[in-house]
Amino acid sequence: MNKGRLEAFSDGVLAVIITIMVLEMKSPQGTSLASLRSVIPVFLAYVLSFVHIGIYWNNHHHLLHATQRVNGATLWANLHLLFWLSLVPFTTAWMGENFASWPVVVYGTDLLLAGIAYFILTKALISLHGRGSTLADSIGQDRKGKVSIAVYAAAIPLAFARPWISALCYASVAIMWLIPDPRIERKLVQ
Amino acid sequence: MNKGRLEAFSDGVLAVIITIMVLEMKSPQGTSLASLRSVIPVFLAYVLSFVHIGIYWNNHHHLLHATQRVNGATLWANLHLLFWLSLVPFTTAWMGENFASWPVVVYGTDLLLAGIAYFILTKALISLHGRGSTLADSIGQDRKGKVSIAVYAAAIPLAFARPWISALCYASVAIMWLIPDPRIERKLVQ
Amino acid sequence: MNKGRLEAFSDGVLAVIITIMVLEMKSPQGTSLASLRSVIPVFLAYVLSFVHIGIYWNNHHHLLHATQRVNGATLWANLHLLFWLSLVPFTTAWMGENFASWPVVVYGTDLLLAGIAYFILTKALISLHGRGSTLADSIGQDRKGKVSIAVYAAAIPLAFARPWISALCYASVAIMWLIPDPRIERKLVQ
Amino acid sequence: MNKGRLEAFSDGVLAVIITIMVLEMKSPQGTSLASLRSVIPVFLAYVLSFVHIGIYWNNHHHLLHATQRVNGATLWANLHLLFWLSLVPFTTAWMGENFASWPVVVYGTDLLLAGIAYFILTKALISLHGRGSTLADSIGQDRKGKVSIAVYAAAIPLAFARPWISALCYASVAIMWLIPDPRIERKLVQ
Repeated sequence: MNKGRLEAFSDGVLAVIITIMVLEMKSPQGTSLASLRSVIPVFLAYVLSFVHIGIYWNNHHHLLHATQRVNGATLWANLHLLFWLSLVPFTTAWMGENFASWPVVVYGTDLLLAGIAYFILTKALISLHGRGSTLADSIGQDRKGKVSIAVYAAAIPLAFARPWISALCYASVAIMWLIPDPRIERKLVQ
Repeated sequence: MNKGRLEAFSDGVLAVIITIMVLEMKSPQGTSLASLRSVIPVFLAYVLSFVHIGIYWNNHHHLLHATQRVNGATLWANLHLLFWLSLVPFTTAWMGENFASWPVVVYGTDLLLAGIAYFILTKALISLHGRGSTLADSIGQDRKGKVSIAVYAAAIPLAFARPWISALCYASVAIMWLIPDPRIERKLVQ
Repeated sequence: MNKGRLEAFSDGVLAVIITIMVLEMKSPQGTSLASLRSVIPVFLAYVLSFVHIGIYWNNHHHLLHATQRVNGATLWANLHLLFWLSLVPFTTAWMGENFASWPVVVYGTDLLLAGIAYFILTKALISLHGRGSTLADSIGQDRKGKVSIAVYAAAIPLAFARPWISALCYASVAIMWLIPDPRIERKLVQ
Repeated sequence: MNKGRLEAFSDGVLAVIITIMVLEMKSPQGTSLASLRSVIPVFLAYVLSFVHIGIYWNNHHHLLHATQRVNGATLWANLHLLFWLSLVPFTTAWMGENFASWPVVVYGTDLLLAGIAYFILTKALISLHGRGSTLADSIGQDRKGKVSIAVYAAAIPLAFARPWISALCYASVAIMWLIPDPRIERKLVQ
């Protein structure tokens, strides 16, 4: 089975997710700079979510690039990942408009479940291609992925004490992925 | 005529449908877990619709994969299917926000019509490729498709007595499609 | 210059247009069948617009299929067409929610301008490929396109007397395109 | 690494941006031509933004056409560009509904940042392909890009005196890009 349409559909879904989030940023009624201030928390949540979806697209791109074939299980593992990511516009809007413990918990939980879904997708692809395959080799230990899941899991309960600490933890995961990784770059240059 | 753009357009429409449904899940005003409770029925309807659109994408993917050419009739049969699927965000929002007989009837009727439209699309493709073609062989009896249509048709009137029984019937169709089918997998592996 | 991305971008825009229109169909507050009645005019406008966008996608598909190259002028002629089509969700919502002279005039004017934009696009492509090209041959006289423009132009002023006559004229254009055309089918089969 | 998915994802995002902007144009409540008048400022802002996104798509198309490979840095430079463009529906809605100094400043600032992001993307691609590459040659001095950035930067402060002068400056940038450029056309024909 061809991976082309899986990529095309995932690209489409991720492109819509990353773009419709902006619809949650309602344009303010006034014309003063102060009226824009109310949009700032939603904007910051938007930036955080935009970067996260961008990271997922980036990683998905690399993962599928090394993939040679897909089967029913990987199609559903992929849809499972897209499901949690599709909720990001909702959790972003809630957290952006109501920065408090529960919205931050729900936002982080969605990211955590998306992280786990990505992990499941890599396992499904490795089990299809075999442990010694180029794909398994290219995924390797996926330490960044495991660290991300651990940070989300640790940050979520912190939101009951200090929501902004949790939010900083989520942001630190994004920054970790944005920092160029010499090992990956080396592979890309080849 | 090339099937590439038919796939690309269908992928685009399905990707938008599956993603914009989340816009119907309005972020709650409060910050408590209780305020999230009001979203639960809409969320459950969202999950059901997400899985259904995912199944259609999956089946469409397989169907077009076996297709060798398309003509005017298949283009319109495909648009007819996309039409009923494009109403899913509307029927999902109505059923999610107002769980009662008529919304559940309308939701199921839309799924029923999408099922029939899919059936018409397979017939149009078979008539184009011929009864002895690989495509006709790969579609086979399409028992799952016929069972789905029968379950929808039976479940819709039940909504006047117990809406949640109908909803469970719709969900059972989704589960039937999610369970891996050894015959299909066998073909995919080859 | 490659036509691939022009097709991909147009497919994306048309897929989003045809799908987001459903967001203008607000789910009714009540749970009765009567509460659904208020949606009927918007639904009928939705069907008319869905078929029109479907026809444009279909024709665009055929037109680009016969196209061998594109230049700056055709890129902008294409964006010009997409511009008028991108307004369809707006004109559909206005006409659906307020079925009266001016909304019907504005709806028809948008279709008229889209028809003219399509005509300009065919001229730009013919001038690029040459009068004796396969593309020019495949477009031919484009009688259906010219008839559509004439019907829109005639129907628009009628809306000041009877809006529903204009709407029937718009619908008749859609039906004219839906009826299979033996000449086109013959070419497709080859 | 293949540039195909970068193009596909960018096409998807740009297609969604250019299309969902129309959702900010709320259909008027009345049925008179006068009720449409309130939509005019939003419509004009929509046209300006549509043309700008069209120009970005056009330039992006040409830029990626000459590109032979992409790396992590260019993927992020591309997402950075898409980020500022993704805010256009928001800034368009605010400026269209509230034509005053600050909304015009914010609208122009977003265009300025998108212009700078495009400049960074070209630099990232040139540094990857080398100064003597076909890509570097095809980008050349990018005088139009630099003029655009300069005009935005000059026009933004003018909005505090006369918002419509700034808006005219933004429009003049769009017109500059729309005027066919013989040098570019010459390359396209080859």
